[in-house]
Amino acid sequence: MTTENAVINVGIAGYGNLGRGVETAMALNPDIRLAAVYTRREPNSVQTLNSDTLVKSWTDLTRGAEDLDVVILCGGSKEDLPVQGPEIAALYTTVDSFDTHAKIPDYFDRVDSAARNAGTTAVISTGWDPGLFSIARLYGEAVLPAGETYTFWGRGLSQGHSDAVRRVPGVANGVQYTIPSESALEAVRAGKRPSFTTREKHRRECWVVLDDSADAAAVEEAIVTMPDYFADYDTTVNFISAEELAANHSVMPHGGRVFRSGNTSDSHRDVVEFGLTLDNNPEFTASVLVAYARAAHRLAQNQQFGAKTVFDIPPGLLSPRSAADLRADLL
Amino acid sequence: MTTENAVINVGIAGYGNLGRGVETAMALNPDIRLAAVYTRREPNSVQTLNSDTLVKSWTDLTRGAEDLDVVILCGGSKEDLPVQGPEIAALYTTVDSFDTHAKIPDYFDRVDSAARNAGTTAVISTGWDPGLFSIARLYGEAVLPAGETYTFWGRGLSQGHSDAVRRVPGVANGVQYTIPSESALEAVRAGKRPSFTTREKHRRECWVVLDDSADAAAVEEAIVTMPDYFADYDTTVNFISAEELAANHSVMPHGGRVFRSGNTSDSHRDVVEFGLTLDNNPEFTASVLVAYARAAHRLAQNQQFGAKTVFDIPPGLLSPRSAADLRADLL
Repeated sequence: MTTENAVINVGIAGYGNLGRGVETAMALNPDIRLAAVYTRREPNSVQTLNSDTLVKSWTDLTRGAEDLDVVILCGGSKEDLPVQGPEIAALYTTVDSFDTHAKIPDYFDRVDSAARNAGTTAVISTGWDPGLFSIARLYGEAVLPAGETYTFWGRGLSQGHSDAVRRVPGVANGVQYTIPSESALEAVRAGKRPSFTTREKHRRECWVVLDDSADAAAVEEAIVTMPDYFADYDTTVNFISAEELAANHSVMPHGGRVFRSGNTSDSHRDVVEFGLTLDNNPEFTASVLVAYARAAHRLAQNQQFGAKTVFDIPPGLLSPRSAADLRADLL
Repeated sequence: MTTENAVINVGIAGYGNLGRGVETAMALNPDIRLAAVYTRREPNSVQTLNSDTLVKSWTDLTRGAEDLDVVILCGGSKEDLPVQGPEIAALYTTVDSFDTHAKIPDYFDRVDSAARNAGTTAVISTGWDPGLFSIARLYGEAVLPAGETYTFWGRGLSQGHSDAVRRVPGVANGVQYTIPSESALEAVRAGKRPSFTTREKHRRECWVVLDDSADAAAVEEAIVTMPDYFADYDTTVNFISAEELAANHSVMPHGGRVFRSGNTSDSHRDVVEFGLTLDNNPEFTASVLVAYARAAHRLAQNQQFGAKTVFDIPPGLLSPRSAADLRADLL
């Protein structure tokens, strides 16, 4: 497999938190060059982090004639990627962070078809979950086939649950943190293999700014009883001012831990643990996207066309270093 | 890449602790069939864990006509593998756990040449370090290029250091545990990026049975001042009876932790952690070898010949499950 290190021209499709994270991450990867940001907004209205970044219109991208080795798709999984994934993979090699777990098989098939027809490579569902956590689950299960896998998330700000809080009548603004149970986590780390209810694994913590006229008790009740999002968890609701929310809850930490706890024989047990502690969720996801952009380019160079996931990609393709260098230094 | 699940015929070359571990691990992998153990001893003299296991002579293996998809090389890195690796890779697809880090590049080249000439695949240096720890170092560095990597080993029984203890005059028997500094580990986990001296990262603990006439003080002095092995560490030497050694120090626990601590931007830091806690080092290493035997067979089926390391192998090839199943269930 070719791993020559010519500079890789990369475009960013979509410029929200994730797109800004990708712009930031590229600066740490000298073999990758940011060609342009593509936006559906008026390009002149977009303020990039780096004032040298070229901003172009979405139609420049979808004409299909841009000089891009890889396009990193930075749209959302709900509305953007289901359309953009197949559309852009029909034009360029792509990487995305599609994270609606239940819809991955369908998304894979649609992107795969577009990429195979076009002779491009489309790496889907990278990031950390799906992504690095998926890899940890797979290695864990493969090396310890007799065992149990556990995934804990947090402490971290959940975008989906924060959105749910903000939709409650009477809520002006708010965020939600997912917090793993320390005792559950320690039990798994110690090699026990408990069965957990949803409530036993994670709790949820909300920080809410009320509308002026809102009834705090009614808001709290609406949150903690909300099906799917909060009813199955121990949820605490804290009311704060807009100033406190801005001062103390405007960063986006996240992370979590994947465990595989298994037996190699009747008498011997092992625990495999993979953990992430992230100051800023979108920036880290972006860093993973950039590493997989390198891999996607190499796969495309080697005519490995179609949709790929992190399971299909040799780890070495993520690194700018040569295979010989990696063997000598990291193996 | 083909991932069909016909049964894979595997031979075990060498039957010490690691070979026994491989025999044990195969029972947990229904798609893998143990064809035979190959030994340089008299086959009739070898007692296998499973009395049904076929034991054959080394010359049966080296004739090159055995019906084997993969041979798992279970010899030692010092004397056995430098010879057996190229020799057996010229006859069969192989997997090994060659772990002399400094000699990996040379070993890779020699095995690669043998395997390419023969049209076989040779997966070298699997296990956990090199192996799963190497993978953790690579993913960490690739996704956080601005940062530091830390590897801690233990608490675990070190075979090399135990051998060094047992070579000291006056020592009848003994074992050595490598123990990571808890404070060093916590500093790294907390996102600090300290520079450690050798002494600050690990300490060494010896449990020694003296010869009848030995001078305890002289033995202790000889151990703690031994260059390379102990002089650079805080080492404690405990004298115990042969009975205590047998009762309390006859299992082989090991493990450790790999950290990547890095920045995604000036203001945001992340910590990636990979940890193993192993009751029995050879059994776990064997479990990794068996998963890579599956991958080696698939690579050979797809004519991916030559030497490979864990960096070259897509994670999905380690699992008996189909790519579609892995996407639906583990991604």
